[in-house]
Amino acid sequence: MINVGIVGGSGYTGVELLRLLLPRTDLNVSFISSRANAGTRVDALFSSLRGFTDLTFADPDDIASSDCELVFFATPNGTAMLQAPGLLEKSIKVIDLSADFRIKDVAVWEKWYGMSHASPAWIGRAIYGLPEVNRETIVDAMLVANPGCYPTTVQLGFMPLLENDLVETDSLIADAKSGVTGAGRGANVATLLAEAGDNFKAYSVAGHRHLPEIEQGLSEMTNSAVSLTFTPHLLPLIRGIHSTLYARLKKPTDLQALFENRYKDEFFVDVLPAGVFPETRSVRGTNMCRLAVCQPQGRDTVVIMSVEDNLVKGAAGQAIQNMNLMLGLGETTGLALPAMLP
Amino acid sequence: MINVGIVGGSGYTGVELLRLLLPRTDLNVSFISSRANAGTRVDALFSSLRGFTDLTFADPDDIASSDCELVFFATPNGTAMLQAPGLLEKSIKVIDLSADFRIKDVAVWEKWYGMSHASPAWIGRAIYGLPEVNRETIVDAMLVANPGCYPTTVQLGFMPLLENDLVETDSLIADAKSGVTGAGRGANVATLLAEAGDNFKAYSVAGHRHLPEIEQGLSEMTNSAVSLTFTPHLLPLIRGIHSTLYARLKKPTDLQALFENRYKDEFFVDVLPAGVFPETRSVRGTNMCRLAVCQPQGRDTVVIMSVEDNLVKGAAGQAIQNMNLMLGLGETTGLALPAMLP
Amino acid sequence: MINVGIVGGSGYTGVELLRLLLPRTDLNVSFISSRANAGTRVDALFSSLRGFTDLTFADPDDIASSDCELVFFATPNGTAMLQAPGLLEKSIKVIDLSADFRIKDVAVWEKWYGMSHASPAWIGRAIYGLPEVNRETIVDAMLVANPGCYPTTVQLGFMPLLENDLVETDSLIADAKSGVTGAGRGANVATLLAEAGDNFKAYSVAGHRHLPEIEQGLSEMTNSAVSLTFTPHLLPLIRGIHSTLYARLKKPTDLQALFENRYKDEFFVDVLPAGVFPETRSVRGTNMCRLAVCQPQGRDTVVIMSVEDNLVKGAAGQAIQNMNLMLGLGETTGLALPAMLP
Amino acid sequence: MINVGIVGGSGYTGVELLRLLLPRTDLNVSFISSRANAGTRVDALFSSLRGFTDLTFADPDDIASSDCELVFFATPNGTAMLQAPGLLEKSIKVIDLSADFRIKDVAVWEKWYGMSHASPAWIGRAIYGLPEVNRETIVDAMLVANPGCYPTTVQLGFMPLLENDLVETDSLIADAKSGVTGAGRGANVATLLAEAGDNFKAYSVAGHRHLPEIEQGLSEMTNSAVSLTFTPHLLPLIRGIHSTLYARLKKPTDLQALFENRYKDEFFVDVLPAGVFPETRSVRGTNMCRLAVCQPQGRDTVVIMSVEDNLVKGAAGQAIQNMNLMLGLGETTGLALPAMLP
Repeated sequence: MINVGIVGGSGYTGVELLRLLLPRTDLNVSFISSRANAGTRVDALFSSLRGFTDLTFADPDDIASSDCELVFFATPNGTAMLQAPGLLEKSIKVIDLSADFRIKDVAVWEKWYGMSHASPAWIGRAIYGLPEVNRETIVDAMLVANPGCYPTTVQLGFMPLLENDLVETDSLIADAKSGVTGAGRGANVATLLAEAGDNFKAYSVAGHRHLPEIEQGLSEMTNSAVSLTFTPHLLPLIRGIHSTLYARLKKPTDLQALFENRYKDEFFVDVLPAGVFPETRSVRGTNMCRLAVCQPQGRDTVVIMSVEDNLVKGAAGQAIQNMNLMLGLGETTGLALPAMLP
Repeated sequence: MINVGIVGGSGYTGVELLRLLLPRTDLNVSFISSRANAGTRVDALFSSLRGFTDLTFADPDDIASSDCELVFFATPNGTAMLQAPGLLEKSIKVIDLSADFRIKDVAVWEKWYGMSHASPAWIGRAIYGLPEVNRETIVDAMLVANPGCYPTTVQLGFMPLLENDLVETDSLIADAKSGVTGAGRGANVATLLAEAGDNFKAYSVAGHRHLPEIEQGLSEMTNSAVSLTFTPHLLPLIRGIHSTLYARLKKPTDLQALFENRYKDEFFVDVLPAGVFPETRSVRGTNMCRLAVCQPQGRDTVVIMSVEDNLVKGAAGQAIQNMNLMLGLGETTGLALPAMLP
Repeated sequence: MINVGIVGGSGYTGVELLRLLLPRTDLNVSFISSRANAGTRVDALFSSLRGFTDLTFADPDDIASSDCELVFFATPNGTAMLQAPGLLEKSIKVIDLSADFRIKDVAVWEKWYGMSHASPAWIGRAIYGLPEVNRETIVDAMLVANPGCYPTTVQLGFMPLLENDLVETDSLIADAKSGVTGAGRGANVATLLAEAGDNFKAYSVAGHRHLPEIEQGLSEMTNSAVSLTFTPHLLPLIRGIHSTLYARLKKPTDLQALFENRYKDEFFVDVLPAGVFPETRSVRGTNMCRLAVCQPQGRDTVVIMSVEDNLVKGAAGQAIQNMNLMLGLGETTGLALPAMLP
Repeated sequence: MINVGIVGGSGYTGVELLRLLLPRTDLNVSFISSRANAGTRVDALFSSLRGFTDLTFADPDDIASSDCELVFFATPNGTAMLQAPGLLEKSIKVIDLSADFRIKDVAVWEKWYGMSHASPAWIGRAIYGLPEVNRETIVDAMLVANPGCYPTTVQLGFMPLLENDLVETDSLIADAKSGVTGAGRGANVATLLAEAGDNFKAYSVAGHRHLPEIEQGLSEMTNSAVSLTFTPHLLPLIRGIHSTLYARLKKPTDLQALFENRYKDEFFVDVLPAGVFPETRSVRGTNMCRLAVCQPQGRDTVVIMSVEDNLVKGAAGQAIQNMNLMLGLGETTGLALPAMLP
């Protein structure tokens, strides 16, 4: 039995890791921490887990003496860069769900995240955990930087076009809409039901932290600089991201065939039939990304629609997909379940 | 491999049976029908099932020539009573999720459901499929009448009190609230998002069809007539029932111990610790019923709160629990998963 | 032009007072305070008010030097009892939307609110601001204690029965459901969209602060002690309360005529036709309370359904109704608008 | 007292016209029809209007004998073109909220709406009812074609840029999101709460009927052909449209000043301060359109956000604004109310 641990387990990403990991019989969650809830039973905080665990939140510092082979960091930005190196040096594998190791250029990271990076040496050794791009290197990784929620949908949506140099790269647009769990479980007036319910708005239009992460990924696909206009919006939903992507085609292409071919071997990326558009509920609670591509009026603007559950393929599910690869457990293990619909 | 079939598979109960059955490796869904959608792929109607099935909706009459050992009827009231007897005569087991076989008194059934019963002979042979009451007889049943959604929560909530003759039976009250999937997937102005969203109201206050079913069950627990005031309300939720039950205590009792003891061996009934109250999301997508009991101000009115997912413990999940018993597959098989929260 | 002021204007009750008062031409809001937002323009906090006001939040202590004839306290419990007496001594009328002056028995108040009362002398002089009960005394009042949101629906619902001694008073039940704005605009994990959305639960079942307020009001109607079981629930709605009330009839009565007759002259209480049940959206944004009464199966339990918008008839609207009476402005002025539906 | 009438009053646009017109003292709604509900009291269908009207739905053919000076058509497409000419010939003014008279090119209209136009002669005489563009001609109009909901937000959003030739017109993008009332009050599986709630998706991506209407309006602003990619999405909201618009700048401009200056005299268009983005709830129930403009990263893609209530500025409210102009009643009469927030 493999033991795994979770540092920062009282947030939405933490409880989602537990929902997906606890029913498994091939591994054991032997450690979970929460500084604020240390000493509290996990199922006292999350009643949905009653009957599935006897775990109690530990102090995060206790991870140093745990017996885990692999540790997930589901902590705020700035924590994993402090704690992960100590584990890595003891040959404990780490998957960081925060942004600490996603950006290769330290100066860019420090500008967007507003702090000095505590372990820049590990940035270069971290593998960006998007299996559809980096599967082979993830298998051997010690440290995986799990992608952000928006970046997963945008990169998977643009990838077939960029890899084949089919669109102008100076005018990409991602109009992205996310449910409120993307903002985390902190007490916050802006995400109260009375504020974010029955409402829709854009935010961080002038610049969102996921912009450099996305541009880094897109640039690697096309081997040149890309310029993206990224507009995030807040949906009155608990879970789900829908990114609507726009690009200018440089030449005629069979877009449907291009997308189907690119993803034909990817279990977690589903290209819908022509004329069918994805909906967030079709992936709710699952690790799927569903895509559709369309060329309205036959004009030269291509529209891609990309949906995921921000807590699963956008966070905990993708982390487990990466864990499965890193531990040789079968990439889809524990993740091959249909969405709850309705 | 056991083959099972679903008659009436295009509604919410049908797709929920598929969500729970398709990932299983110990049985196979070999037949599903929908008169309106015959010839259509199931995953064309329910995109959440893409990748999990190649089934196509058959005509319901084709069930006669299927190879199923057990058939679920997820049809409107009045259909199973016509089709089930033919299957039963061929020794195919039947679980009816409609109301056709729930009420033992044919005259009562015909009054509340407004039609003549087509197979009254089978009513007496049908077992009421509430495993927490009838587990032993369900194991040997050929025909199970799966309980209604409201009746499941109300019966499980009152049961410990009635079995022990602790409350007045002439003034029971069930104030019940349900999400809109209880009304089915039919096109209906009253359940449009623009009508039922951002709204709350009572309905069928003068008399709801689940009243005789509940009173029948409660009477059997206490071996006397009971009188229930049952007020259903419509919640702006997709899934979930919360029943708040009221009764007058006849004598002092340790209510917490009573409930915990009654359900200590029931996997799918969870009595919460004293002072903790259940929430519908804690059972969303699962076969759990969560209960709490409280005696406010120490007065003689006892309050019980009982929650379930109306599509799971209130329909498809309980049907599968019954199927597991009838086929000897292990009562909790395929149903022991934590709720998605948040 | 009459000047009025609002102390504590940055919460939901405050902005609702502004929404209803700013379009009026017979009075002027000349003062509004918020300690946390002092110096900020009101329409910077509430963009819905852009174009309707140039007010800036003042420090609450500045109310002492304002030119207001009447002041609303939309403050947390415990504030009005400190500040109102100073205004009252200067002959400035006060409407307190908090609970400070609602309970006549100081000891009861101090037990339920957990603090000592700072101005017990004013409790006896405060008029409980339910116009359907106390209209004549409100007209001459200096200090009005505006009723709580739940208490308004429950008292209006039981009143015709209690005033006529028609029901048992030892077993009244109020099963009440409220939208989340009842909890205020504070940052709070429990009322996040990701927590309170797509969910339903009971809370404070063992004892809610509105219980003594309701029992006090009901007792006055019947001139004897009453015993109420009061179960509040949290609806996934922004606005709206639906109280379902239960009582045991002592003798046969024409309930529909009783209710219609009691409220035939009340503009803000609407008794629905027999067989029609109220919905929260029918009163959204308005000062109406809609009622229905039903006697299911002709048994002796009567069911009353009572709905209001908790921020209007349950708070700001009723406060303005009281203000209209106190200032002789016409009871329905500024409040006679139909609900937004859908 | 001016009498006005409504043909097709049982839908969401009809009840919204009533909500806004019934409280007015300068006019009287003397006629309302609904073929399906003829003979039913209006407040029996819409309980929110109880106390505000004694109207009964008439047969739509009875409009011919009414005493109205002006008639609103809130009918499905294809009805007003049959009935309006008869009224116009009797000098009764008409405001058509459907699409029958919006498109000047009959062939284009017939292609997109799939029917022959019954009164093409009136198309040329109809004024497109966007007051911010056509105020002067609306004042004298006999027939006003009230704009579509999406087209209002998109045209008001792009207008300052196009009028001043500041952006490329071959690559405009409108990523638009609407609440479900845009789909009307018909029984429809796709807009059930259980389908459209807790969900988000794009629809009609290959071509939506509002595309030619928008392109017609934008072309008139810039005196040249424009090419728009228009992607509508369905929000899990009852009311509200948020259009996010993208265009490529041709030269540097002070965008904030441009927008503020263009709309400084428009009561119903509010340009937000730099850095503030509009939210749909800030216009809920009101006739406002709120706009923001932003140039992310200082690159050459400009982003405009434009919100409205689709039933008010997108339908009934704008129709009343037009009526006020046509009847000389003061453009903002009955429409100058702040939004209900929260």
